[in-house]
Amino acid sequence: MNDLFLRACRRELVERPPVWMMRQAGRYLPEYRAVRERADFLTMVGTPELAVEVTLQPVDRLGVDAAIIFSDILVVPQAMGMALSVDEGVGPRFHQPLRSPGDFARLRDIVPEQHLGYVLDALRLARRALDGRVPLIGFAGAPWTLMSYMVEGQGSKSFTQAKRLLVQDPARAHALLARLAQAVGAFLVAQVAAGAQAVQLFDSWASALGPRDFREFALPYLAEAVRLAKAAGVPVIAFAPGAGWALEEIARATGADVIGVDWQTDAEDARRRLAGLPVALQGNLDPGWLYASPGEIRTRTRDMLAAFGGRSHIANLGHGINPDVPVSQAQAFIDAVKEWRIP
Amino acid sequence: MNDLFLRACRRELVERPPVWMMRQAGRYLPEYRAVRERADFLTMVGTPELAVEVTLQPVDRLGVDAAIIFSDILVVPQAMGMALSVDEGVGPRFHQPLRSPGDFARLRDIVPEQHLGYVLDALRLARRALDGRVPLIGFAGAPWTLMSYMVEGQGSKSFTQAKRLLVQDPARAHALLARLAQAVGAFLVAQVAAGAQAVQLFDSWASALGPRDFREFALPYLAEAVRLAKAAGVPVIAFAPGAGWALEEIARATGADVIGVDWQTDAEDARRRLAGLPVALQGNLDPGWLYASPGEIRTRTRDMLAAFGGRSHIANLGHGINPDVPVSQAQAFIDAVKEWRIP
Repeated sequence: MNDLFLRACRRELVERPPVWMMRQAGRYLPEYRAVRERADFLTMVGTPELAVEVTLQPVDRLGVDAAIIFSDILVVPQAMGMALSVDEGVGPRFHQPLRSPGDFARLRDIVPEQHLGYVLDALRLARRALDGRVPLIGFAGAPWTLMSYMVEGQGSKSFTQAKRLLVQDPARAHALLARLAQAVGAFLVAQVAAGAQAVQLFDSWASALGPRDFREFALPYLAEAVRLAKAAGVPVIAFAPGAGWALEEIARATGADVIGVDWQTDAEDARRRLAGLPVALQGNLDPGWLYASPGEIRTRTRDMLAAFGGRSHIANLGHGINPDVPVSQAQAFIDAVKEWRIP
Repeated sequence: MNDLFLRACRRELVERPPVWMMRQAGRYLPEYRAVRERADFLTMVGTPELAVEVTLQPVDRLGVDAAIIFSDILVVPQAMGMALSVDEGVGPRFHQPLRSPGDFARLRDIVPEQHLGYVLDALRLARRALDGRVPLIGFAGAPWTLMSYMVEGQGSKSFTQAKRLLVQDPARAHALLARLAQAVGAFLVAQVAAGAQAVQLFDSWASALGPRDFREFALPYLAEAVRLAKAAGVPVIAFAPGAGWALEEIARATGADVIGVDWQTDAEDARRRLAGLPVALQGNLDPGWLYASPGEIRTRTRDMLAAFGGRSHIANLGHGINPDVPVSQAQAFIDAVKEWRIP
């Protein structure tokens, strides 16, 4: 049983940092693309057998130290009643974004076992299939990120709809964010009950908010979701890419066990700033560096590991792996971590 | 003659901060849209009379304290020989992005008066038309931002082509960045000769680089372009949105007179970090806040002004104004600055 990942989450002594990659069950893997040819993205997410198959691929192929369940952050709004499409090249899209008060009122509160049972089934199956080889991570989107997707309807550059809501009807925004924090918290607790041994909250669109709005609309609800998830008794990882300036505030306000560090943030700086706080750090190799040669990837990975210092660190990319990275170069990253020893 | 803007750039005493808005000659103005109906974007950029007409619109309509010449950062790569389109809803696109060594070799070095004479003509005409009412700002894209556009061919989320270049052929990247720094520097000097009374460098895609790459591929060339531009004897503004973590480094490395602050950066934090350096600051109201009511915009603008402290500050948005902001709300921002007095 490789429990390096869980030990690092708890800041226990490890012989080397554990390593996994965000979006490691993804298109850069030929065996993932083979499944994807048989089923579209949402079918894969919605079919536990397929989700489990791709969840295990990077464990088998690359030897990562943790598996993360194959799913999507938008399953929560979908379960609340919003029709979702994911089209090749377009990305995820809600058919009817939230615009009128009626749109908000129509959302239903979710019961995870009832409305997201397929994710929980996938976790149960994956946990069994992993058979203790590596720990299994569950995840969810943080409230701000989910709400902004629900309001915009799709990815956005300037988030004009979501920003309108924040300035024109902050009370409505707060009400939805509070509901989402409850939903996400309950979902993560259910994921742990189904077998997740750690959970990660992704506040992927934290970068769309300036400091004042982040503190008002993102951080408190991220913190509430973490608080609810922590009751399940497993390590909770909080990752808010694009909000590197807020690492200390995220650590203090959420009480998360692990703080994700994005690739835009200097690793030594992150380590220094969080040194006094009871958190492990996760990250943060620039995914763009996986286009370098395997030798160069090894060098840069070792530099990153040294910057984090090796203790209370989970090696990862600072963002999801790009789909066009050759597997050999992803492998070079994983191997470089596994070869490294704390100085 | 309203020279508040130039005095603030030079950190001289002012009775209140000057104010202008990035992209103030833009689609949120009905009179701009009227011109745009007669001519497409690149025709407007390429026709000095039209460029001057829209350059003056926000001065006439809103009473801003500076005009910025209507143009585009991509005129430099275009002048170097890259065919450019700007289509509604798609954004700017180079027909043949730089991919092979031959693509790089085909680029020509530019002589501003010869290859960008239409921008210089627009500046001469605008300076005359302004007749001293407010100062005229010229601008250019910084080398990293231009190169990444030239390599990607268009806007990008993950900049995979540009990142490939940086890790796979850094020498080629450095060679092009050095050429671009020379081109941009010479272009800004020519803009001053044609009438620009200050110039701004936009490193709009600074956020695509982590700290190590920013220090290697963006900052030195931004600094070189600033150095060349400073020889023209007018204030130089350096703006690298998304690199708020690097404000001190940008101030120190470039020697720019004014440092732009993006809306993701806390204004008080920026002020504190740059307090000991000989720079004025420009920014940084969240453009998304212009969706608020005029009263709320006034309050938030006053908070922003107070955070910067009023001295050595040029009030602006922290990014270009969004095209769907009502003019009355842009006006509320401008008016709030003009009503404010340094405490």
